[in-house]
Formats: sequence, C-alpha cells, structure tokens
Amino acid sequence: MTETKIPYKIYLEESEMPRTWYNVRADMKIKPAPLLNPGTGKPCTAEQLGAVFCDELVKQELDDTTREFEIPEEILGFYRMYRPSPLVRAYRLEEKLDTPAKIYYKFEGNNTSGSHKLNSAIAQAYYAKQQGLKGVTTETGAGQWGTALSMACAYLGLDCKVYMVKCSYEQKPFRREVMRTYGASVTPSPSMTTEVGRRILAEDPDTTGSLGCAISEAVEDATTHEGYRYVLGSVLNQVLLHQSVIGVETKIAMDKYGIVPDIIIGCAGGGSNLGGLISPFMGEMLRGEREYEFIAVEPASCPSLTRGVFAYDFCDTGKVCPLAKMYTLGSGFIPSANHAGGLRYHGMSPVLSELYHEGLIKARSVEQTKVFEAAEFFARTEGILPAPESSHAIRAAIDEAVKCRETGEDKTILFGLTGTGYFDMVAYEKFNDGTMDDYIPSDAELEASFAQLPRF
Amino acid sequence: MTETKIPYKIYLEESEMPRTWYNVRADMKIKPAPLLNPGTGKPCTAEQLGAVFCDELVKQELDDTTREFEIPEEILGFYRMYRPSPLVRAYRLEEKLDTPAKIYYKFEGNNTSGSHKLNSAIAQAYYAKQQGLKGVTTETGAGQWGTALSMACAYLGLDCKVYMVKCSYEQKPFRREVMRTYGASVTPSPSMTTEVGRRILAEDPDTTGSLGCAISEAVEDATTHEGYRYVLGSVLNQVLLHQSVIGVETKIAMDKYGIVPDIIIGCAGGGSNLGGLISPFMGEMLRGEREYEFIAVEPASCPSLTRGVFAYDFCDTGKVCPLAKMYTLGSGFIPSANHAGGLRYHGMSPVLSELYHEGLIKARSVEQTKVFEAAEFFARTEGILPAPESSHAIRAAIDEAVKCRETGEDKTILFGLTGTGYFDMVAYEKFNDGTMDDYIPSDAELEASFAQLPRF
Repeated sequence: MTETKIPYKIYLEESEMPRTWYNVRADMKIKPAPLLNPGTGKPCTAEQLGAVFCDELVKQELDDTTREFEIPEEILGFYRMYRPSPLVRAYRLEEKLDTPAKIYYKFEGNNTSGSHKLNSAIAQAYYAKQQGLKGVTTETGAGQWGTALSMACAYLGLDCKVYMVKCSYEQKPFRREVMRTYGASVTPSPSMTTEVGRRILAEDPDTTGSLGCAISEAVEDATTHEGYRYVLGSVLNQVLLHQSVIGVETKIAMDKYGIVPDIIIGCAGGGSNLGGLISPFMGEMLRGEREYEFIAVEPASCPSLTRGVFAYDFCDTGKVCPLAKMYTLGSGFIPSANHAGGLRYHGMSPVLSELYHEGLIKARSVEQTKVFEAAEFFARTEGILPAPESSHAIRAAIDEAVKCRETGEDKTILFGLTGTGYFDMVAYEKFNDGTMDDYIPSDAELEASFAQLPRF
Repeated sequence: MTETKIPYKIYLEESEMPRTWYNVRADMKIKPAPLLNPGTGKPCTAEQLGAVFCDELVKQELDDTTREFEIPEEILGFYRMYRPSPLVRAYRLEEKLDTPAKIYYKFEGNNTSGSHKLNSAIAQAYYAKQQGLKGVTTETGAGQWGTALSMACAYLGLDCKVYMVKCSYEQKPFRREVMRTYGASVTPSPSMTTEVGRRILAEDPDTTGSLGCAISEAVEDATTHEGYRYVLGSVLNQVLLHQSVIGVETKIAMDKYGIVPDIIIGCAGGGSNLGGLISPFMGEMLRGEREYEFIAVEPASCPSLTRGVFAYDFCDTGKVCPLAKMYTLGSGFIPSANHAGGLRYHGMSPVLSELYHEGLIKARSVEQTKVFEAAEFFARTEGILPAPESSHAIRAAIDEAVKCRETGEDKTILFGLTGTGYFDMVAYEKFNDGTMDDYIPSDAELEASFAQLPRF
C-alpha cells in the first residue's frame, strides 16, 4: 500500500472537526418561502413560532442570511461521543461492480440511534434545556428520530414524550424499548390523549397512523403543557442547519485528501440527510465556485419531488402546524401499507424544494424491491447492513457506478449512508422470503390528494 | 482543550494497525493442557483434529511456541472494513460517577455483527476458503457469532450453515434474518437433521437447546458432509489468537498516548473477548515486564470460573468433541431460562483457565439485574446501548471506579465493550418492565453436574 492511497475509512482528528454549522440559505439567491400562519395566511412571526418551538430554534429557522452558526461547546461534547463519522471508500463495492467509478459514502449509522438524526436531536434538546424547559414532544415513524431524541434528552436530563406512528409502534417493539431504556415515554399515534388524536380516530378507528398525524398530536401536547416545546426531526430549516455537520465533515475529509465528488447522492424523505450532506457543496455551486450533480432519491410509493406539486401545504395531517411551501403529495397522503422502506413523509424540506424547483438538484424515485436488492448486495459486499432509507441512495449510487462501467468514465460518486437496518428486519424478512412487492400510487390517487391542498 | 488531552476516541491510522496476531501461549511457562481424544484418552493429533477443523487452524490450535502470526493480507483487507475499533475515554462516565479513576473502553460493536466475533470469523472462513472447502458449519447462541460468520462467508463466497440454539431462534427472529440476508442457512437446534439432534430430542422433546448441543450438531454436520469443516466462535486457542487483534490494537493506541492501565476487565463466556483483550498485556506480565490486574466477569447464573472445577470436560453436550481441560460447570449444565444476559457456555477457554488457575487473573460473578442497571446507566451516559454480555464488564468497571472514588485512587481502568444490544431488546424490555429477576444455581445443582464429568 502506498502513502497516497486513500484509506478505507477517513476519520477526522478531533482538532479537525467542524465547529460551525453551515446555513445554505445564506447563499441562496431565491430564499425558501416563509412558513405561513394557517389562520392569517401571513408569514409566521417569531412570537407565533415560539409557542411551538424553542426560542433559539425559531431564530435559526427564520435566519436566512447568517452563513455560519457556532456549535455550542456542550453540543460539540456530545458530537465527540459518536462523531466524526467515517467517510468510507467503497473499494470492495467498486471491485464487485467492476466500475472505474470511485465510490465514497459518509456513514452516519455508527451510533445507537442508528442514523444521522442524533445530529439535530442533541441540538434541539440543548436549546430546550437552555430555555429552562422541562421537556420536549415529538413524533417518530420508523423510530430513528425518536431514539435519537431520547438519547439526547437522557444526556441532558430532559423529559421526552414520543408519539410513534401506530403501525411502527406495533411492528417495531424493539425501537420502543430502546427509547424506554433512554427514559422516554412512547405513545402509539393516533392516541386518545390528544384532541386531534381523538378526532382522527373518530373519523377512522382502524387507521394505522401516519407521520403527519403523529406530528399533530405532538404539537398539541407541547402547546397544552407548561414547560414543553415541540421538536421535529426533518423538513425544517433548523434541522438542515444542524445536519450540515454531515456535509461539512465530509468536505473537510475530502479536501484533506484532494477528493472532489462529481455526483452527490442522498435519500430524501423530509430532506434532513440530503440537505445536510449537500449543504457545503451546494454552497460552492451557489457561489459559482464549482459544479456538482446532486441527486435526491425517493421511494416510488411516496414520490414528493418527482410527482408532487410545489405549493403551500400543511406539515401535518391534523392541520395544526404552519404551512410550508414545498413539493408535496398533500398532507392527507399516506403511503401504501406494503411500503417498508421508510421516507414516508408527504412533503419535502422547503430549502430542498426551492433548490429542486430551480433545477439545482435532480430527483429520481425507486421501487422498494430494487432498493432491497441494492441493500442486500451492499451488506454482503461492504459488510454494513443498511437501513432501507439509506438503501435508496445505495441503489442510485450503484446505478451511477454501473453507468460509468458502460461509458468508461471514472466519476467520483459520494453518497450518504444514513443508518443501519438492525430494526428493519421485518422488511428484510419479507425480502428474504420473496414476499415483498412494490406500490406506485396512480395519477388519480395523487390528483385526489392534490385537490385537498389548501389555497394560499 | 489542550494538545495533550486524550481524545474521546482514539482511532489508529491504517498504517498503525496490527499486522500480526499475538499468541500468549508462547509466553506461558505452563502451557494449557492439550485437547484429548475422548476415544483414546490421549492428546488429539493434528490428523484427528483435521477431520473437524481446517488444517491451518489446527496448526494454530496446536502451536504454543510461535509468538506472532502474520495476518494474511485478505484478512487485513476485511479488518479495514470495520477496524480499527475505537478506544474510547469515558469522560462522561467518570464525571457522572464522580471518580478520580480514568476509564477507557475498547468498543468492538461498530460493525453489523454487533460484536468482536467478526475478528475470528473472517480468519476461520479465510482458512476454509484457502483449503478449497465448500463451506463451514457452526453453532450460535445469542447470534453474534452466527452473524459474524455469515458476514465473513458472504464476503468470501463460502456456504455457511448455522445451528442456532432453539430458544434464541425463537426469541431473536431478527438475528436469524440478518444471517439469512448474508446468505446463511439457519436451523434451530436441536434439530431432526442430525443424529445427535434426534437423540437429544428423543431424550427431551421440549428442550430449548443449549450451545453445547448446537455444537454437537454443527460438528456432526461438518464431519458427515464432503467439503465442510466446523468452526467455533470462542473457547479454542485459535480463537484467542485471532481475537488478540483487540488487545494489540488497544496496546498500540495506549502506548501512543502513554496510557498504562492498572486494571483490565472483560466479560467472560467462552473467553474469546477477554482472552483477546488481555493477551498482549498478559504477555508483558508473563515476561516480567509489567504488572496488571486482570478481572474476568461472568454471570452468577453460569459461573464457570468462580464456582466451576478445573478438569477435563467435553466441549459439547453431545460428547462428540474432544475434551478440554478447563474450568467447567459440566457439559450438561444449562443456565436457567430466566437468564437473559448471554455468556451461557458451561466451560472456559483452556488458556484463560490455566492463567486463572495460576492466579494471574481474578474472577467475579454478577447478577443480571445488576448487569442491566449498569447497562442502562451506561447507555444514558455514554450513548451506546451495550450488549448484555458486555454489560458484565461495565458493571465491574463501574464498581472499580466507585471504589476509587472511596479511596481517592486515580487508577486507570480499561474494559472491553464487546458489542451492542440492538438484538437484545426482549431482555431490556423485561428490565424496563421490572420483571427481570436473578438466578443463582444451588451448590446441589452444581454438584450433580460435576458428578457427570468424564474421568480423564
């Protein structure tokens, strides 16, 4: 092995780790549209948002000009427990694919929450603690976000109430137990503990729940209990800001070894991972310093970018949250029950939506059996058992590497490996048994959902 | 933060990683007793062992004089996929315990098998492949070893047949699915596919199985199928040799920062982790270069070191394997069904048994509720959700750190954090629900088991 060979895994030294988050909005010429108050149809004020979110987080949410935010020392201390995450050169994958492409992935799954969600969870919990709050409420779907928030709250001594989408609560009892081990209370949603939960259950007693519905319950809980605020694991500007630590670390590591990616790929549900990973690279492109190809990969069963509309919509099913301008399938859209691959949110981060609208990001959708094929191949080749969500990015990275094999191009491909699939074995079992199938919503189904969009 | 501060996590550079395994037997004045052929009562020959194990592994098993074994390049390549493992300074744990002790742990759980088992799995699979075999058979209890072997076999393109202790097979369907995802076949043991399985089922149709019984089945399967050999995840000399990579890496990292541990702690089931972690340190002590305090921690429900006898015994329940001289509870001993904390093997590595017999290692047993208390505390403090097995070492490390608080000594404590508990949530759920209890075998129970020991 020669000195100049890129290591299998690049770990930054502690002294090289980022000390600031990067706010990509500062470099956007067209800013993401503001959140609207559903009552007035006007942009939400800091005061209105402060009833739901912590004050400091409201500031971050509304600030589209400050380029860098210093990461508080206590958050850096927490980051040091599980960061830096490795930037891995997928030598073995390249070899198996017989591709001239160079493939790198930033692996965010080496922590107990099993995903990148911890990066924003600790930040949000920290600001809640700083504000002297008792605790926070949130929703969780697949469970990564709830687990991450439980860990962060346990670390800081904050109370943590999690509304978990009912079908996940039942299918993933182990996720629930991890959260309980970290001291969180976990309630299946919709529940009878909130007004919005009771209303949704009255309309459809057999509903298996949705992220949008769990959000409504968590927001109601926070706004009706003294000393609580609501926190959200994706979609929001503040979340992308915190998640920029992924991209900034990646960029420092790549710069250190003189690596320049041609293509940057991430899975996209609400957009937190993709937004975080691409931020500093997108910043360079927005400032005219360099060109990159960005690809968002979403499930064919929940295709907000590729088949949604760019419009103001509610962030939640219960319509208690502000409206965001985003690519959306409609806040009532719920992916088919046979969809096992995560990324179930009906909308997309306003930042990413705006960038996509301007043509700065490409998007593609993939069917879940193809995603699990990629996941299995990756597991056997690179060792890591990936989360279904992350496997959307793996699918696209493999497809791009295969294209390079055909064209002979030696492109450098970077993708985000957001997490591990240890709690997704029910889905893997379906795939192993050959009983997994695909679902693609019909145009009529989407049209019906779009017809319900609010008019703003 | 000053330049000389020990980082939270020490990762070796690729160029610093060990290229040899260290064989502690070379430095032992009294060598571990040889394996005996149960038919003749004489030491097993290489030829006899070659019917069960791969030839190269037999050589390693029998070699008690070569101090260092070069790690083959292909194994180094695999190691680079998930190693180096971090040596973590538990700053937060020290702070929470308010102890002057300095606590370090070597974390082996950052890979999909979730434990250190992968270190030996890849080595054993590699030598099987080198020998031109079709595949390997093995047993697994909690599932870490089976998962690790599946991963190694998938990497090398070998067939992998796993006999999984029936109660684990049923309680841990997700472990089974991980193995299947890596292409292994998984059979609950005892099964009707082997003679020994049928015999054990005839004697006790309701048995939930045991490691010893699954070993018998896997050995029979290997020896009755052309092109297969049996591999074992612990106990054997060869396994300790491969696992020495843990200790060697730890020592390189500690030497780099001038850290000298006073106490080295590991959980002990069959001894693979403890033996691997302590090897190079024990080597120094055996050569008279330095003194350390070594502590083996075992479950009170399966106390082979603290309450077993040092005698020749069968390695398996079916009595088809060679006999090993070791601390044992008797090959028929099965820990109580309420025991959830792993480390269920009836015996202990002959190397560790001999070292313990000479007073070079201390041992203590701990009850599982105390173990899970330590696990939960550790999870909330250090972020990582530990495996129940590893939590035995955490328990002892915390106890030692608390002693330091009382005496004011600033000892340096090193322990092995062998793995993560993501597949042990049934046990955590019991603990969270307050329904976990302890079991300590009675003297009469152990005496009855000892009475069944073979006379050699």
